[in-house]
Amino acid sequence: MVKGIGDDCAVISIGGAEHLLVTTDLLVERVHFFMNWASPEVIGAKALTANLSDIAACGGIPRDAFVSLAIPETIDLEWLDGLYRGMADIARTFDVNLLGGDTTSSKSDFAINIAVTGLVPVDEVLFRHTARANDIIVLTGPTGESGAGLDILLGSSAMTHNMARSLVASHLEPRAHVREGRLLARSHACTAAIDVSDGLSSDLRHICRDSGVGAVVHESQLPIGEMLSQAARAIGKDPLEWVLNGGEDYVLLAAVEPGLIEDLQNQFEAEGRDLFPIGKFVASPGMELVRIDGSRQDLTPHGWDHFRSQ
Amino acid sequence: MVKGIGDDCAVISIGGAEHLLVTTDLLVERVHFFMNWASPEVIGAKALTANLSDIAACGGIPRDAFVSLAIPETIDLEWLDGLYRGMADIARTFDVNLLGGDTTSSKSDFAINIAVTGLVPVDEVLFRHTARANDIIVLTGPTGESGAGLDILLGSSAMTHNMARSLVASHLEPRAHVREGRLLARSHACTAAIDVSDGLSSDLRHICRDSGVGAVVHESQLPIGEMLSQAARAIGKDPLEWVLNGGEDYVLLAAVEPGLIEDLQNQFEAEGRDLFPIGKFVASPGMELVRIDGSRQDLTPHGWDHFRSQ
Repeated sequence: MVKGIGDDCAVISIGGAEHLLVTTDLLVERVHFFMNWASPEVIGAKALTANLSDIAACGGIPRDAFVSLAIPETIDLEWLDGLYRGMADIARTFDVNLLGGDTTSSKSDFAINIAVTGLVPVDEVLFRHTARANDIIVLTGPTGESGAGLDILLGSSAMTHNMARSLVASHLEPRAHVREGRLLARSHACTAAIDVSDGLSSDLRHICRDSGVGAVVHESQLPIGEMLSQAARAIGKDPLEWVLNGGEDYVLLAAVEPGLIEDLQNQFEAEGRDLFPIGKFVASPGMELVRIDGSRQDLTPHGWDHFRSQ
Repeated sequence: MVKGIGDDCAVISIGGAEHLLVTTDLLVERVHFFMNWASPEVIGAKALTANLSDIAACGGIPRDAFVSLAIPETIDLEWLDGLYRGMADIARTFDVNLLGGDTTSSKSDFAINIAVTGLVPVDEVLFRHTARANDIIVLTGPTGESGAGLDILLGSSAMTHNMARSLVASHLEPRAHVREGRLLARSHACTAAIDVSDGLSSDLRHICRDSGVGAVVHESQLPIGEMLSQAARAIGKDPLEWVLNGGEDYVLLAAVEPGLIEDLQNQFEAEGRDLFPIGKFVASPGMELVRIDGSRQDLTPHGWDHFRSQ
């Protein structure tokens, strides 16, 4: 075993040129999703995507997925077929073997556990604890849209149908950034990575704490989609709340050596993928946000309520 | 991937001298156990044991365990500590790394998913589908005690306290036959194996169906513990009902080349382990039980009600 609890995956030495990656996620009805939010296809696809995202964050190539289901009586075969179709569709896209694990009944909620294995060359594994001061902070996609979509699903934001549909889709149908993870890992320019599942500020803190560094993020550099800005304006909300604390974005947040960032951006561009520098890691602990007006404020995962009052 | 769904584990080629084994089990409150049946230590230990038993059935050496928990509000930290202690105790016994997987809340029942990886030399993997006619059917321990213990827990059998305690312990505190699995695998005398989780008759049928053979089992050769016989007498029940259909025994059921069985028995004896020949696999399909009086009857997993009337 190379690295255990704490990273997105367990990284396990298997004696060859590659390490084995293992990740497992348990999703429970009424905690992670409601059955009436989406089709079974969408629920199945997202469950597998969340696991593939963990493999991506370690720079790995996903390989086999093991599915365990706890099925209440209220669920019928048609729904389960849909769930498997959704998983199979994603599995096919990423060339993953979808393997049965365990199927059992449930006296109450539906639950699904997926364990995914992957492989990564031993010199390409991406960890959370290896970012260094002066490394550039990058994102492989915008954040916040999924969180806005969740707010819409929870009924807390009213907006036009088109806007809502696009944001809800960001929440329900995220894409695992496996290709981006491989580009980061192969480049040897990336020093650390994580996938953004808890929210940008929380996951940035994970890297900072595990690496013993701080971070400065520039608001002006944060990728914010037009739909998110529109939605925020429509309900009089600062879009940064979603961008920094939304969660379930499943883009990758990474550290890149400053001298190699340009080359890496060119590689991403050549593959039609995004790479957004949003700030840099620093030696002093703590996380700061440089606002557009140049003012600085603490960037803490629990410090976002004050945005509401601005 | 070498072999997927259907065997106790997925058997995955990782390009070296060993195959990777992966197994995953989801256990749910009120389906697999009731919280008031046992201490959290016992529940945790058994959950891990069930997975280790799958690795044992493939002849493997268990390596890493990944635990996902869905925790309702009614569960406190002390209980969870106990659960982990129980798992850690078994993990230590079998030299397994106990790794965090995922912890989430639950709105209703407690659920635990454990995924376990293991390794097995490529020429020693034990499958279900490779038994041959004339191979000897063997058990690495007695069956039925766990099923009797479950009946006691479910309140359907009245008996003395000592008897009950011993049988309930067989149900709640089974042992994974990892050592026995390795002895079978290393011997190259074993042609197929499975762990007895569904019940002896059901799991024998799994081997027969997957291998395209039949089976003849001799009642006189079945290992039946004294406690089980006593309990059966006490409530006027044929102990065979438990022995053949109990389930959750977690001993191994295997096929052994007839010419090599004696050597293998000596190896088991030298290691202080049991190996009981109980019959043989045959070319013609179907499963038969030779009763002690010499009469023969069909041995079908669903055919056991007629024992009640004898």
